[in-house]
Amino acid sequence: MKLEIYDTTLREGEQSAAVSFTREDKIKIIKALDSLGVSFIEAGMVTSEEDVSFFDKVADLSLECAHPVAFGATCRPFERAEDCAALSMLARVKTDTVCIFGKSWDYQVDTVLGTTKEENLRMIRDSISFLVSRNKTVFFDAEHFFDGYSDDSQYAIKVLETAKEAGAERIILCDTNGGMLPDIIGLASARIAKLFPGQVGIHCHNDLGMAEACTVSAVLSGAVQVQGTVSGIGERCGNANINTLIPILQLKLGFDCIGDRIASLTSTARYINETANRTFDEKEPFVGGYAFTHKAGMHIDGVMKSPRTFEHVSPEAVGNLRNIVISSLSGRSAMADKMAKIYPHLDRNSPEVAIALESVRKKETAGYTYEDAEASLALVIKEALGMRKNYFDLLHFKVMTDEDAAGGESAFDKMRSTALIKISVDEKEELAAAEGNGPVNAMDKALRQVLSAFYPVIDNMKLTDFKVRVSSGGATASVVRVVIESTDGRSVWRTVGVSPDIINASWQALRDSVEYMLDMNNL
Amino acid sequence: MKLEIYDTTLREGEQSAAVSFTREDKIKIIKALDSLGVSFIEAGMVTSEEDVSFFDKVADLSLECAHPVAFGATCRPFERAEDCAALSMLARVKTDTVCIFGKSWDYQVDTVLGTTKEENLRMIRDSISFLVSRNKTVFFDAEHFFDGYSDDSQYAIKVLETAKEAGAERIILCDTNGGMLPDIIGLASARIAKLFPGQVGIHCHNDLGMAEACTVSAVLSGAVQVQGTVSGIGERCGNANINTLIPILQLKLGFDCIGDRIASLTSTARYINETANRTFDEKEPFVGGYAFTHKAGMHIDGVMKSPRTFEHVSPEAVGNLRNIVISSLSGRSAMADKMAKIYPHLDRNSPEVAIALESVRKKETAGYTYEDAEASLALVIKEALGMRKNYFDLLHFKVMTDEDAAGGESAFDKMRSTALIKISVDEKEELAAAEGNGPVNAMDKALRQVLSAFYPVIDNMKLTDFKVRVSSGGATASVVRVVIESTDGRSVWRTVGVSPDIINASWQALRDSVEYMLDMNNL
Repeated sequence: MKLEIYDTTLREGEQSAAVSFTREDKIKIIKALDSLGVSFIEAGMVTSEEDVSFFDKVADLSLECAHPVAFGATCRPFERAEDCAALSMLARVKTDTVCIFGKSWDYQVDTVLGTTKEENLRMIRDSISFLVSRNKTVFFDAEHFFDGYSDDSQYAIKVLETAKEAGAERIILCDTNGGMLPDIIGLASARIAKLFPGQVGIHCHNDLGMAEACTVSAVLSGAVQVQGTVSGIGERCGNANINTLIPILQLKLGFDCIGDRIASLTSTARYINETANRTFDEKEPFVGGYAFTHKAGMHIDGVMKSPRTFEHVSPEAVGNLRNIVISSLSGRSAMADKMAKIYPHLDRNSPEVAIALESVRKKETAGYTYEDAEASLALVIKEALGMRKNYFDLLHFKVMTDEDAAGGESAFDKMRSTALIKISVDEKEELAAAEGNGPVNAMDKALRQVLSAFYPVIDNMKLTDFKVRVSSGGATASVVRVVIESTDGRSVWRTVGVSPDIINASWQALRDSVEYMLDMNNL
Repeated sequence: MKLEIYDTTLREGEQSAAVSFTREDKIKIIKALDSLGVSFIEAGMVTSEEDVSFFDKVADLSLECAHPVAFGATCRPFERAEDCAALSMLARVKTDTVCIFGKSWDYQVDTVLGTTKEENLRMIRDSISFLVSRNKTVFFDAEHFFDGYSDDSQYAIKVLETAKEAGAERIILCDTNGGMLPDIIGLASARIAKLFPGQVGIHCHNDLGMAEACTVSAVLSGAVQVQGTVSGIGERCGNANINTLIPILQLKLGFDCIGDRIASLTSTARYINETANRTFDEKEPFVGGYAFTHKAGMHIDGVMKSPRTFEHVSPEAVGNLRNIVISSLSGRSAMADKMAKIYPHLDRNSPEVAIALESVRKKETAGYTYEDAEASLALVIKEALGMRKNYFDLLHFKVMTDEDAAGGESAFDKMRSTALIKISVDEKEELAAAEGNGPVNAMDKALRQVLSAFYPVIDNMKLTDFKVRVSSGGATASVVRVVIESTDGRSVWRTVGVSPDIINASWQALRDSVEYMLDMNNL
C-alpha cells in the first residue's frame, strides 16, 4: 500500500527556535526532497505578495515526484472568504495544492478565536469552498484534533465532516500540543479513518518524545498521509521525523513510501541539515553516524559474527554505513566506490583504497568530515596517492583587524580587516594585500589577486557560501569547522578546513577551493 | 503505584560513541541522581579491582534514595561460577545490588556464545545462585529478550524462569537492538508480567526513535522497573530517556516515580549533561530550553490567552520555564510579559513597551534575532529605556593573525592570533594583550584580562559555546551572526552580534556577554 509522505520542513521546521531559511535554501531543499521521492512539500505559509511570487519560482522547478503545497489559515470570524486577503493570495499561488488549518477543539474556538462553534464551522466551510472554486486541491489541517476529540468528540467530528463536504481531499489530524500518547492517537484515528476511508492524514509533535510512535499508530489505524519534517526540525521539541518514519513504515511495516529511493535517505538527510546550517544529530535513528556504530567490545564481536545480532535493519538499506569503532575494515567498499569515480580501475581490495581510507581516517580524527565537502575529499585522496599537484607555496601571511575606536561601539562600524599574502610559483614570487569585510573576505580577495598573476582562470571563480561550526564541547578554544562553497558559474564545489583557529580553518578551505578549481581546469 | 526508576547513564551512557566519564564525574552524577530520587543507579561494569574499589567509594556516599548497582555478565560456557573472576569481583563489591546480563535469544546462544541452549541456562542459573549465596540482591537483564520471544518464545520464557528460580529479584526485558515497535513490546511484556507479577523491568533502545513509547507500553502491561539514561545517552541512537519517561509516567499516567522531586528534573538534567561535558539538546521534551518556547505568532497569542492552548503540561511541573520568543511580530503582549520580569509595573499599553519593541524591530532589520540570545535582548530593552549602564569605553582595539609560513601548509599550524584591547573605566585607562587559538579566543582573553582589573567577578565567567552563521545569500561578504554562550557556573546566558565582519560580530557578542554578567551582579 502506498503512503503519502508530506514534508513540512520549510514551514513547521522554520518555526523551530533556531532555524530560518533563505529563499535559495528553500529551493535547494525542495529539489532534494523531490529527488528523495516524497509526495508533498509544504513550501511555506503564504502571507505576502513575496510569498506568492516565491511559489511562481517553485512552480517553474518542474518537480519529478512531489507536489508543492502552499500553507495558510481559514478566514477570520465574520469575515467572508472572498474578502480574506490571505485566502485570495493562496488562491493566486501558481501551484495546485494548498493546505489550510482550522480549529477542531471547542475550547480553542471559545478561548482563542472568541467566537461560536457554528461560526467556526462557517469559516472552515467557506474558506475551503472558496479555494476549491479557484481550482485548488485542498487539504485541511484539523488543529488540536485529539484534544478536541477528547473534550467534545461530536464537535471535532462535525468539523471534519464540514471540511470534507466543502471539498477537502485530505483531513489531517493534528496533535498540535504534542501531548497525546500513541494508544490514544491510534484509537481516535481508527474511528476517523472509518468515517473518511483513504482520506486521513496524521501530523504529530514530539513533546512526549513519541512523535514517530504516534504517527505509526495512526497509520496502522488507517491514516494514508504522514506529515513530518527532516530530522524532526520544528517548534518546541520538534515534529515527527520523516527520516525515522520512512524506514519504519517501508522496511518494517511493508508500506510503500518512497520506493527504491530510500537508499538515498541518509545522504539527503545530511544535505538538508547542512543546507539549513544545522548541526546534524549523529544519534539520529537510521541516518545518524552513530546509528550503526558499535563501540562496546561485545557488540563488535557479535556484529562481526553476524550483523543481525546487534542490528535490527541493514545500514545499506537506508544508504548508511556500519561503523566499527577501532576496526580498520569498515568503509573499504564505500571508499572504493567513491574513488572509482576518479580511478575506475580500483576496487575494494586495491592498496590505493586502503591508503586513501587511512588518510581520511586520520583527518576525521582531527575533526574533518567530508559529507558536504567532496572537493576537499578529492584532494585528500589525490594527496594520499601522491597525485596532488602543488600549485603554489605560501611564503608569508598576515591578517589584521583594527580600528581606533575612541568614542565607543559606534566607531566600531569603521573597523576594517586587511590581509597580506605572499606566494611563489616556480620560484617566481608575488605579493598582494587586500581589504575586506572581515578577515576571511580579505584573505579571499588577497589570495585570488596574488594567484591570478599565475592562473588567470581564477578570476572566473567566486565564493557563494561560507559556514562555520564549532565542534565538540564549544567555547572559542574548540575546533572550528569551516565549509566554503564556490562556483565558476558552471559547477559548484565545497571544501572544508578544521583548526582551533577560524582564520587557519578558513585558509585551508580557501586553499582547497582554489586548488580544486585549478585541478578541474587541468592546470 | 510506585515504579522503580533504574538509571544506567554511567554504564550504558558511557557506551555512547562520544561519552566517557572520569571517576569524579561519576560520583557527581550519582549524587545528583540520588537527589532526584531515582531508585537504582547502575554505576558501572565491574571488570577490574579498580572497579571494585570504586564501589567502595560509592558505598561511602550513604545515599538518600538510590541503591547503587554493580553490573556484570554471567560466567562463560563450561566455566564454574565460582571460578569466574568477573563474578567473584562482583560478589566482593561493597554495595548490595548487582545486575547481570545473559542471553535469552536462541540465535545469540548459537551464533555468539557458540554453545547449547542447556548450557546457557546452566550459566544463568549458576551465576545468579552464586551471587545470591554471597548475599547480593540480583537483577537479571535478559538480553535480546524480544527477538528471542519472537523466534522461540518457549526458550525465552525458560531463560526467565531459570533466572527467577535461581533467585533473581527482577527480570529485565531488554530490546537490545532497539528494533521493536511499542505494540510488540506491550504484548510480550503483558505475557511475562502475568508470569512474574511485580518483578518485571523494561530496558529499551532508541533505534526506531521509540524507546520511550516502548517503555511506556511495557509499563502499561505490568512492568514495575524502568531502565533508562539521562537525556537518552547511550550506544548507537541511545537509550530510553528518563527525563522524558518520568514526567509521562508520573504526570500523565499517575504512577509515582520520584514524587515531589520531579520539580528538580530540569536542573538535574542540565547539571548531569554539563558534568558529562555534553551539549544539551534544547529540543529535549519537558526539560529542553525549547520545550516550552513559542515562536509562531499565533501560538504566542494562544498561550497568552491560556497556556493550555499550546502546552500539554505546565513547564513549572518539571522545573522548566515558558519562553516567548520575542520578535517584532510577537507583539506588545509578549514583550510586556517579558519586560514584566524586570519591570513588574509595565503592561502592554505602557509606552516603554512600544519603545522596546521598536528598538527590537530596528535590530531585526539589521539581521539580529534574539530567540537564542535572551541576554542581548535584555540589554537592548534596557538600552531602549535609557537604563543600560556603561561599564567601560573601548579606546583601542587590534587583532592580528600571522605567521611566516615558508614551507607551506604545515608551517601554518604555528599560526597565532593576538588581540590588544585598551579600555577606560571612570577615566582610568587599562591595556591588555593576549594570544589565543584564533582571533575570537584571543579577544575573549584580552577583554577579560583588561576588565578583571576593574571587575574581578569577571574571573568566574567562561565561554561555553560559540556559533557562527552567515545570513542571506552567503559568501564571506554577507552578514555574519555570532552567538556566544557563557556561564558563571550557576546560570547560562547567550548573546548575539551581527556584522559583515566576524571579528566585529564576535566583539559585540562578547561585549554583551560581559555586560550582562556585570549587570546580574548588580555592579
